[in-house]
This record gives sequence, C-alpha cells and structure tokens, in this order.
Amino acid sequence: MISDIPRPKALPSEQVRIESGLWAERQTTNRNRTIPAIYEQLRKTGRLDSWKLQPAERPKRYTVIRMFWDSDTGKWLEAVGHSLRTHRDPALEQQADELISQIEKAQQPDGYLNTYFTAIEPGKRWTNLRDWHEMYNAGHLIEGAVAYYQATGKRTILDVMARYADHIMERYGPNEGQKRGYPGHPELEMALIKLYHATGEKRYLDQATYFINERGQQPIYFDVEARERGEDPADFWAQTYRYCQAHEPIRDQQTATGHAVRACYLYAGVADIALETGDQSLLETSRRLWDDLIQHQLYITGGLGPARSNEGFTFAYDLPNETAYAETCASIALAFWAHRMFHLDPHSRYIDVLERALYNTVLAGFSIEGDTFFYANPLTSYPNVNPYEPFSGITTDRYYRREEWLTCPCCPPNLARMVASLGDYFYSVAPNTLYVHLYNQNRATFQLGGRDIQIEQQTNYPWDGDIQLTLTVKQPADFELALRIPGWCRAYRLEVNGSPVAAPITNGYARLNRTWNAGDQVRLVLDMPVERMLAHPNVRQDAGRVALQRGPIVYCLEEVDNGSHLANVVLPRDSRLIAGMDSQLFGGVSVITGEAVRIAPASWSGDLYQPQAVQPVAETKFTFRAIPYGFWANRAPGEMRVWLREF
Amino acid sequence: MISDIPRPKALPSEQVRIESGLWAERQTTNRNRTIPAIYEQLRKTGRLDSWKLQPAERPKRYTVIRMFWDSDTGKWLEAVGHSLRTHRDPALEQQADELISQIEKAQQPDGYLNTYFTAIEPGKRWTNLRDWHEMYNAGHLIEGAVAYYQATGKRTILDVMARYADHIMERYGPNEGQKRGYPGHPELEMALIKLYHATGEKRYLDQATYFINERGQQPIYFDVEARERGEDPADFWAQTYRYCQAHEPIRDQQTATGHAVRACYLYAGVADIALETGDQSLLETSRRLWDDLIQHQLYITGGLGPARSNEGFTFAYDLPNETAYAETCASIALAFWAHRMFHLDPHSRYIDVLERALYNTVLAGFSIEGDTFFYANPLTSYPNVNPYEPFSGITTDRYYRREEWLTCPCCPPNLARMVASLGDYFYSVAPNTLYVHLYNQNRATFQLGGRDIQIEQQTNYPWDGDIQLTLTVKQPADFELALRIPGWCRAYRLEVNGSPVAAPITNGYARLNRTWNAGDQVRLVLDMPVERMLAHPNVRQDAGRVALQRGPIVYCLEEVDNGSHLANVVLPRDSRLIAGMDSQLFGGVSVITGEAVRIAPASWSGDLYQPQAVQPVAETKFTFRAIPYGFWANRAPGEMRVWLREF
Repeated sequence: MISDIPRPKALPSEQVRIESGLWAERQTTNRNRTIPAIYEQLRKTGRLDSWKLQPAERPKRYTVIRMFWDSDTGKWLEAVGHSLRTHRDPALEQQADELISQIEKAQQPDGYLNTYFTAIEPGKRWTNLRDWHEMYNAGHLIEGAVAYYQATGKRTILDVMARYADHIMERYGPNEGQKRGYPGHPELEMALIKLYHATGEKRYLDQATYFINERGQQPIYFDVEARERGEDPADFWAQTYRYCQAHEPIRDQQTATGHAVRACYLYAGVADIALETGDQSLLETSRRLWDDLIQHQLYITGGLGPARSNEGFTFAYDLPNETAYAETCASIALAFWAHRMFHLDPHSRYIDVLERALYNTVLAGFSIEGDTFFYANPLTSYPNVNPYEPFSGITTDRYYRREEWLTCPCCPPNLARMVASLGDYFYSVAPNTLYVHLYNQNRATFQLGGRDIQIEQQTNYPWDGDIQLTLTVKQPADFELALRIPGWCRAYRLEVNGSPVAAPITNGYARLNRTWNAGDQVRLVLDMPVERMLAHPNVRQDAGRVALQRGPIVYCLEEVDNGSHLANVVLPRDSRLIAGMDSQLFGGVSVITGEAVRIAPASWSGDLYQPQAVQPVAETKFTFRAIPYGFWANRAPGEMRVWLREF
Repeated sequence: MISDIPRPKALPSEQVRIESGLWAERQTTNRNRTIPAIYEQLRKTGRLDSWKLQPAERPKRYTVIRMFWDSDTGKWLEAVGHSLRTHRDPALEQQADELISQIEKAQQPDGYLNTYFTAIEPGKRWTNLRDWHEMYNAGHLIEGAVAYYQATGKRTILDVMARYADHIMERYGPNEGQKRGYPGHPELEMALIKLYHATGEKRYLDQATYFINERGQQPIYFDVEARERGEDPADFWAQTYRYCQAHEPIRDQQTATGHAVRACYLYAGVADIALETGDQSLLETSRRLWDDLIQHQLYITGGLGPARSNEGFTFAYDLPNETAYAETCASIALAFWAHRMFHLDPHSRYIDVLERALYNTVLAGFSIEGDTFFYANPLTSYPNVNPYEPFSGITTDRYYRREEWLTCPCCPPNLARMVASLGDYFYSVAPNTLYVHLYNQNRATFQLGGRDIQIEQQTNYPWDGDIQLTLTVKQPADFELALRIPGWCRAYRLEVNGSPVAAPITNGYARLNRTWNAGDQVRLVLDMPVERMLAHPNVRQDAGRVALQRGPIVYCLEEVDNGSHLANVVLPRDSRLIAGMDSQLFGGVSVITGEAVRIAPASWSGDLYQPQAVQPVAETKFTFRAIPYGFWANRAPGEMRVWLREF
C-alpha cells in the first residue's frame, strides 16, 4: 500500500484568476473563438442534430467516423463547463442547456445513450468494445457532465450520465451474469473517478478499478467478443492489442506502447486508481511507464506517438521529425497524466513534462486566432509532407497547415477543455504546503490551516524568469510555500521581502517554510539563457543537431523569417544566441536571433549527384530568427524546423 | 519524324559469353539457385497448379493477390528462356515444356488466358483494366513466350500467346465495336513489340501504338469502366490516375509520376514505339520524362519511387533514405527503359543510369546465395524499420532482411529474367560501329560489314577500371569501336597495341575509327578514385552528407564492420579514403577504409534532452570499412547507411 500521508490536492480553477499574460490571452481566445467555432462545427456537421434521431432512424449518408461523434459533444460540453467555472456566460449556458435537454431525451429507457447505435446500427450495440467507442463516448460525456455540474450546480446531465454509467456497470463487471469487458479506447476510467467525486458514489470508483484490473487478463475480452461476432480475433485490423494496451495486464506492462492517446488516458486512469485505492503496484506501474515514455519516447516539444500507422508509439529513441504524428490530443492526455502523477507521487518532474507539453505542442495545436487546429505536430515541415495524411500521389507544393475541422476532430474540443481548465494546473494544496506549479500572472485564493490566503503572481513568464509572488493573509500564517524550480533551470535566485534567502529543494520544489505576513513578497528569478539542447545519442534523427530552448519554450526556424531550404542551415557552435522580446509578433513573444550559415554548393547544374571535388561548397552567413514552436504556422506558409544542424 | 539514320541494335546475349567476373558469378547463381528457387515457390504457392483449374473451379481459399499470379509464371518462363539462350539445360527445358503444356490447355476457346478470371471470378473478366491486371499478366506471359521461343525455337507458347493477344486486340482498340481500353499496369506495350519482332506481325506493333496513344485521352477509359461497374470513378482507391500514368495523354506528361514500375514499363513502351514508328513527339516525351526522373527523382543507388503509399514517385528532390521504397522491380524497369533510350537516342548517359541501377539496387535485390530477395531497397537500415511494411505496432529489434518469397513476389522473377538476359546489354551494333556499353570479362562475336569479328574483354571491372579488349578478325576490318566513357569517370587513358591514342568522344563514347587487324589490343584505363558524392542541395534528406562511390559502385557502412549507431558516425572532410580488394569477402569485392569519427556524448544519463553545455561531446576515431551497397545484408543483421555525415 502507498503510505497514507495526506496528498496534495489541486487548487480548482474557480480559485485561480488568470487575468493577463500568455494564458489569459489563450483563455480569452478559447472563450471568444474556439468554443463558439467548435459549436458551429458540431452544428454544421450534424452532431447536434444527431441527438434528435429516433431509434433506428438511420440517415441516408453516414460514415464510420460518426461512431465517435458523441465524444465531440462531450468534450465541447466539458470545455463549456470549465469556462463557466471561471467566467459566467448566460448565453453559453443557455446553449449548453438546450443541448443537454436533447441529450436527456435521447437517453433510452434502459439508460443507454449513444446516437450511433441507437439510430444507425441498433443491432450492434455492445458488440465491439474494442473498436466501436461506446465506452469512450460515454467517458467524454460523463466528463462534460461533471464539469457542467461543477460550474452550474445543475444536475440534469450529471443524472443522465450516472444512469448511463449504471447501465454500463450492470452489463460489464466481474460478477456472474456480467461480461468481462472494458474500454477499447480508455477514457471512461478517468471519467468514472470524476463521477465518483461528483456523486460520492463509490461504485463508480469500483468500476474504474475493475476496468484497470481486468484489462489484458486472459482470455482477452476482445478475443471473446470477436468470436461472438463470428470473427477470427487474429484478423484484428491493428494486429496487436498493444494498440489498445490490452496485450497484457497493466501491472505487467513495461513500456508505453500502442495508440498514444489511448495509452495516456489509460495511464492517467491507472494513476487515479493508484491514488484513490493506495495500490502500490499501480504506483510502481505508473512510474515505470512514465519513465519509459519520458526517457525514450517523448519529443522535445512534448509531442508523443511518432507513427501515423498506429497513431502511436514505435520504439525507444525513434523520433522522426518531418513525419512526427505527435497528435495534439496525445500531448493533452500526457498533461492529464502528468497532473495525476504529481498528486500521486509529488515531484516537480511530472510538472516539468506538463509544462513542456503545454508551452509547445498544446500551444501549437491551435492558431493564434483560435479557430484552426493541428492534429499532427511535426518538428520539421516541408511542402507536400503531411504527417496527418498519407501521400496521395498528388503534389501541390502545399504546406501542412491547421484546419478548421478534421476528419477525426478529436483535437479541437480537447484543446478547448484543456485551456478552459488551465487554472486547475497552477497550484496544489497539502495540509501545510502550497505548491506553485506554473508561472503566469494570476491571483489565487486558498485555505491553509483554516486561514484564507491570497497569492498573486506578477511575471512575464515564459518570456522571462522573474516571478514576483505577493501573499495576502489576514493574520500571520505558518505554512510552506513550495515553488517549482523547473527542470530546465540551472540557476536561480530567491528573495523574501527583498532579501536573498536559501531554501532547500525537495522533490524539485524550493521550500520556504515560515510565518507569512500580509504583503510578504517572494521573488523567484529563474535564469533563462538560450540553451542548445541535444537529444540522447540513440535518437538517430537528431544526430548532429541541436534544438534551441529557453525556459520551457522550444524554438523553431520558419521560412518566412529565414528563407527556404532550412535543411541547409547550420548553426556554428560558437554563434552567439540572443533572446529578445518582439512586441509586434503575436502580441509579444520572445524570439532568438544569431548568426547561422547556409551551406550549399554555389551553383549546381546537371546531375543530381556530383563529386564533392567538383562542387565546392559556398557558406553564406545570415542572421537567423527563431520563434516559439507553439506559434509556428501563424504567418505565411513555409518550411519549419526545430532540430538544426550544428558544426 | 525522327531522322531515319540506321540506329544501333543490341547484340543479343547468344553472341556474348560472360564466363568469369562478377556477372558470370551472378548468372551462375541465377541458373543454379534463383530460377529453381522461384520454380519451387511457384509450385508451393499453387501458381503452377492454378493452370490446371477448370473454368469456375474456385478454390476454397484465395486472396486478391492471386489476380497477379500469372505474371509470376510469365517472368519465370522468361528467365528460363533467357537462360537457355546462353546455357542449354534439357532438364530445365523439360520443366518449362510441362508448364507450357498446362498453359496451353488452360487457354479458353476464344483465346482468353487468365487463371484468376477463368477459375475464380469468371463473371468479372475484362471489367476492370485499371486494377485487375489481365493485360499485365498477358504482357509477362508474352515476354516469357518470346524468350522461350527465341531460346528453343519451339512455337507452342508463342502461338498460344499470339492467340491471346489477338483476343485482346479484338476487344480493345480504336474501331467501331471495340472498347477504348488500355493496360492499368503497363507492360503489355513492351511485350507486343517483342511479339511483333518474333512473329513479324505488324498488328502487334499497331496495338502497342494504340495503347500508348489512347492512354489518358478523354473520356478516361477507367472512368467509363468504373461507371459500367456501377462505381463512382471518384472512389478510385489510389485517388489519382497519376498512379497509373493515365491522368493525361502521354505527350502532355511533364514529370515521371505515380507507381514507379508502372511508370518505367510505360516509358519503356513509349521509347519502343518512338523507335519503331519514328514519332518525334514520343522521342521528346521520352527525353523529357527521362530528364525529370534522373535529375530530380533517382536515388544514387539507382533506386526510384520513394513512397510506400503509391509504390512510387512523390515530388522532386524527395529522397528519404530509411523509408526508401525503391522497389527492386522499379530499378529493373528503369534498366529496360534506359536500354531502349540508348537505341532511340544513342548516348552514354542512358547506359550510365542502367549501370548505376544494375551495380547497386539490382545487385542488392538478391542475396549472394540467390534465394532471398528484397522488394524495397532503403539507403539506411535501422532495426524495426521496414520500408516494405507499415509499422505494425509490434517492435522486435528485427532488421529489414531479404525474404525467400514476398506477399507480392514480383521482384524475384524480375531479377531472374534481368540477370539471365544480361548479355543483351553489353554491346550494340550500328552499320559501322560497335558500341561497348558494359565492362566485364566476356567474349562476343558480331558481324560488321559482313565480316565476323570477335571481341574479348579482360578486366576486373567494376573493382578496377583497367579494361583490355582484344579484337579477332579474319581479315582487316574498318569500323568504329565506340567505348563508353562512364559518366562517373573524370580521367582515362586509351591505348591501341600499347600506344596511347587520342579518340574523340561523341555522345559519351570514345570513338576509335580504324582498320582493325587480328589481335589488335585496346586498353582503356578508367581512373577509379573513391569519390565523395554530394546530392543536389534541394535533397533535404542528404544535406550535410556524402556518399562514397568508386566507379559505378555506391558504398555503405554496415554495423557488422562499424558497430551500431551509424547516425553518429562522421566522416572528416580530410579523411583519406583507401580502396582495396577484400578477396575473402563475397568472393572478392572492393572495400573502402578510412578514418571516421564517432561523435556522441561520453556518457548520458537521465533526461532524453539535455543542454549541450552539460553534455560535452566525445569524439572517438576509428577505422571505418565500407562495402558495396549491392552486397549489403549478406552477413550479420545490423544497421546500414549510405549517406554519411561529414564535417
């Protein structure tokens, strides 16, 4: 059993006001553009109307993608819920209530709730957990219901979803008369934990625990189910249950494997159960899978899952840049998992990864305007190369760009719910400690030892590392202020009320244990030089290359600033790199400039291959300009490159 | 019209004895191992028995691949024919005769001949030229029939195939009552030209001309045919008729595009028709497509078609190394096309490409033992990366290796027929000129001006560039000896009977115009230094890299000689490169050694990404050893790499 010391709890976003700075801007855009744009897409594509279909009322034309539609509604509802938790908006609430009313009407008498298998293929209900996403859809709707209930106190959708959860639990479980099924696409596990917290009903925790424990047990349920459909389980299109992490029991799994979003949703659920039940073996499993992913399979941008073929992991140190699939949803799922890992095993290393994902791949996931989205997040972009789609045989010199909507539009509403709930990730509270995880302008209120305390951050982070924290207490309060010293930071200063202080670092947090008085000022100055990052020498794709990083931000070169043929750009090892704010760019971001060299033969004619001896190379110096990766593809289309050749 | 100067004609392999040297070894292996191994596979997989099936006698289990089975038989028969042309073998001939007898019996009363559409789906005959390969199969069987007839003088299979050709021609053509179809997978065009030459029947030439002219004309026949099947042409699985080069008329096509084998078979047919008919526009088309392919889309190994998704071309300068599909058949098809281009437009540049393909990708296509085969031919190999198969989700640290047989086994019999007919590629004869294209020990006899002449090559080419040619004439003979000066060669010496001579070079051939006497000796010494080759600076995958080439041979590093993690190996620009024969290796090949540096952090622990400042790089010098690319993967499995980092 995990020792039962009281664990930190995340401070909910209701208590965290993010009013300026980078994340305030992204949240404003999310409310004003992203959430409405997604609603409009749900409407245009028929997802909203799909709730109105009567049983067996099959539309004339539909595609298999329709099986996943309900999850899009669920994630939109969750984004709305999180947004309403911090920003009331009666019109938005009205829009959600109308949708909820439709969802309620769509629920079947037995509690079942799925637009596809009610209207389109009613005979196939619950016949393919492996592929047909009923549980996945249920999970997202439950998460939406819980967030909306938390925001508004309205129980309608929560009760609807609890009934559906009960319907599922009646059917699947370890007891006589139940089938031993579990989700093909994990997600419901996390959702059931939220439902447990929202309702207080322990049966939802028990069901999530059952799902985690049953997964991958022999006989594999998906085999049983395939035979019941009259199929040979060996014909599974994905070829291996690694795809859905059901190839063996979770406690036997050694590496992060298969479909990346499935994997991280599952692992987040495992961490939830470990925390809730105190199961030591699940804690060890979580740490083992975490370490494997972080040490062997994570892009420097916080992207993960390099392969299109399984939308997921391949093998250790395999991190192709141009074809990186690195689904936006996978980085969001990683952030969910990281957040749970911190609360299970309090250490800053989890938040370091969360921050890496947030500031790079998550930011890149949507445009500055907030209404176009990336599904795949390559680290090099070149015309005609689209990691989200296989080569079609038609070349157009088109660059990979964000889209208003996607064939599989899982990412846009995932971004919306992540950004809307970002306040949840800033702080955690333990009985005598306030953990400060993320730095951005904000004002938070919390209670420690029965006292109301306010903390305010003033900072231009991530563009510089100077963070002022002001504490407001009504009367002096003894507690530990634990400030995360990011993994990327190699030197910092800490002051209290203008005087340098030394603070021990435990588990990655600088611990200031003292009696705090009203108006106490803490200043944390994180050194934030530009660093040339190397990848592990086994990452063959990055051999001889460096990536520029400053603070949590990974940089890239874009054609619009640096010309084309970025493959020929080399960064001399002695080139001085200068970071500075560009207040004109994207409302103000830090950019890096320095001297680079373009190496290419001075002229080239004729043969595609020529002896070096007859092709003297010309080196042209120029001043390059790198911008934050999270902001790429917001200007003229062109090449992009994170990993640069160095000599 | 192309000017009607008499064009050179290839000297047939019956007149070229290749008795020692590299190609003699490969031909011996082909006869002793490859041709029998393929026959055994044809037998084991049911291809031989498929000829015995009665109409509508559908086997219990079959796959769609079976649609292409007849072509495997055709190519095996062609390999047998070519082999018998130079090496009589009564047992092999007996084996072929038995097969031919089955094929003859399988022909339908109306001339139709296809095992799949006779036995398995008789109702679907001639309903999908685009995908169902009836014409492709016919083409390969015709080529097999012609080769076998040429070797043995036996007409049975030739007559069978002529009847089938007549059946096809009755159905497809420009006249009233005919359908305006043409092959979805080109091949029949070349075959009909061969049938024309073998039978003297001009209608086969006319039909091939019709196929070339009709292709891509509006309305596109494949659209018409799809509608007749009740399908929407827009649902074509390959998305574009570029896939089969039917997107526009051939004379409008500007770039080599689509499926690479289809492309080169088609272009070879176009060159055939240009030569036979003197059509200037087809000559120009041929040159234009050739230049595009060679200048923009060819690997240094003579491989082509980088993408698995369309088994073909992508866009200019896109030449990924690790995922290079570069199908063996595509390089063989390129050799066919190159050979025809020379005869259409006599210039050594075509033979240069033929030689590049032969000595690198074609040689790599099969093992030293001759009984395992590559389909895809990557230029970098790394465990778990298999360019022939998509990532399956299962990692095993398995290296990409040759297989005894393949899901689509088009390459093994293609290699067999290419190698068996290699003598056809050595010489061409024009009215007053003997062209010498390829260098390898051999003895050839030919006629010029009515005189019998023998030429003998003594050389260790391609391992060195010293070539002795001895002429044997019964009486003095005036003619031009045209010796190819390879494109890779930047300096050479030429001697006649021990004295240096100057010879003008026209169209890439050094021309020795004189009266030749018995025993005249010509010595051509081609400088063959090791060269560091660069790729065009637009080839982003090769930026900052060099490939080692010596003569026609491209070299690679293998793990068995150089350790693993070849991505970290760097070749200093001043490193001296030494070529030398290794008589122990593969019966004697030239290898290159020199000093390289392995650059990697001295130690690495923890994070996948670390600042360069805290990870000082260690440089370890070692003596690398490069072997010919054509011989890779014949020893312990491991990494392989052609393009090496340089600094």
